[in-house]
Amino acid sequence: MLYVVGIGPGGERYFTREAEEVLKSVDLIVCYRGYRKYIERFKKEVYTTGMKKEIERVRYALKEAERRDVALVSSGDATIYGMASLVYELAVKDGCRVPIKVVSGITAASISSGLLGAPLNHDFAVVSLSDLLTPIEVILKRVRCALEGDFVLVLYNPLSRSRKEPFLRTIDIIKEYREKRGLDYIVGIVKNAGREGEECRITTIRDICDNLGEYMKFIDMNTTLIVGNSNTKIICNKMVTPRGYLDKYKI
Amino acid sequence: MLYVVGIGPGGERYFTREAEEVLKSVDLIVCYRGYRKYIERFKKEVYTTGMKKEIERVRYALKEAERRDVALVSSGDATIYGMASLVYELAVKDGCRVPIKVVSGITAASISSGLLGAPLNHDFAVVSLSDLLTPIEVILKRVRCALEGDFVLVLYNPLSRSRKEPFLRTIDIIKEYREKRGLDYIVGIVKNAGREGEECRITTIRDICDNLGEYMKFIDMNTTLIVGNSNTKIICNKMVTPRGYLDKYKI
Repeated sequence: MLYVVGIGPGGERYFTREAEEVLKSVDLIVCYRGYRKYIERFKKEVYTTGMKKEIERVRYALKEAERRDVALVSSGDATIYGMASLVYELAVKDGCRVPIKVVSGITAASISSGLLGAPLNHDFAVVSLSDLLTPIEVILKRVRCALEGDFVLVLYNPLSRSRKEPFLRTIDIIKEYREKRGLDYIVGIVKNAGREGEECRITTIRDICDNLGEYMKFIDMNTTLIVGNSNTKIICNKMVTPRGYLDKYKI
Repeated sequence: MLYVVGIGPGGERYFTREAEEVLKSVDLIVCYRGYRKYIERFKKEVYTTGMKKEIERVRYALKEAERRDVALVSSGDATIYGMASLVYELAVKDGCRVPIKVVSGITAASISSGLLGAPLNHDFAVVSLSDLLTPIEVILKRVRCALEGDFVLVLYNPLSRSRKEPFLRTIDIIKEYREKRGLDYIVGIVKNAGREGEECRITTIRDICDNLGEYMKFIDMNTTLIVGNSNTKIICNKMVTPRGYLDKYKI
């Protein structure tokens, strides 16, 4: 049996009971090297590989799952930019008939939303700015469509040392919509959400543009950005997108 | 202290350790009447109200939190179509200075994604089809922008006995894109995700159109719909949106 398990950001308090129980029950845990620290407490046999070794990791998990119970661990939710799709693709490609079960976890969008206030309390779109596997034109078209639809926009993997263009061009598109709509978008930035070194900032797109160099030093691959919609407000120093109760009931 | 706690679908296995500990520690739990069954096991004082009594519920929680520890419970994640935004709005409106802390939970999109396979494994947009608090034109514009951007599209609250128009018009828009793009969208339907009576179907927009009456009997307020993008596939009878590893590594 292969369990594909989302563990949230990694700390014990974010594990669901189901994830906890599955990891206690399996014979082998397979994960990215950097996540070993989050699952060591289960005292199991562990197999890890590094970045960009996802295929090797998934194939090992599938192979071992033919003879014992294996948990393949993703951070966040395994089906949201996680390992689950690759598991299904390789299972069919390799003719592997192991039963597969996904165990849901909390994705970075939820954690970041709760830390910032409640920016995702209305319709939202999620886009990864990593162009390793997605053409940049597809990414930028999605950013544009999300703003056109006045979605709250969540950006995963915004910036890495070698990958700056998708971020810079996204900022340009948001600036263009700011001018077109005559509003300054509120932006929430969460670094290391739910992890050591967690840090939140709430600002505006204008401030980011005015201090781009500084923000580009702060933002990294472990940062989530949430760009508010035209209705997002700062309330009690928190970033909040109202659902509309107060308007409806005239409070 | 006021904790705004997401409990996921409700069953014990989806609670995070943090939610579990907060609910064990508080003096009072406030929630929607229908969720009482999910928190009775904590054996606490409970205050509930019915549907459309959200404002009363939040005000009671805020008032009580001035003198004791209170948990206001949302299903799913409290910041995703949950109670968190209303808490901040009413706190500032009523001049209430109680400290507020959000405890993240697993939203229906995650649970549904894991049950269907991994349809959210690439960029996605989330839209609620309830027009109680949002004008229908805003909802439909978002549906259109999500399809234009080739997002996977998650639909919350698709249909209720008295609210059929947003659903029917959304289906029409998807049909229009099916014709325009010459592809049949895969649609995953999850009823009662993570709850008693859980049921999943994977189909296409064409099949839904051909059997609209039957599907409209099946789909209700407790159903989540996930409409695939142009890249979504059925693999091992699951609905999967690949991230692109196989293309990248030519496997």
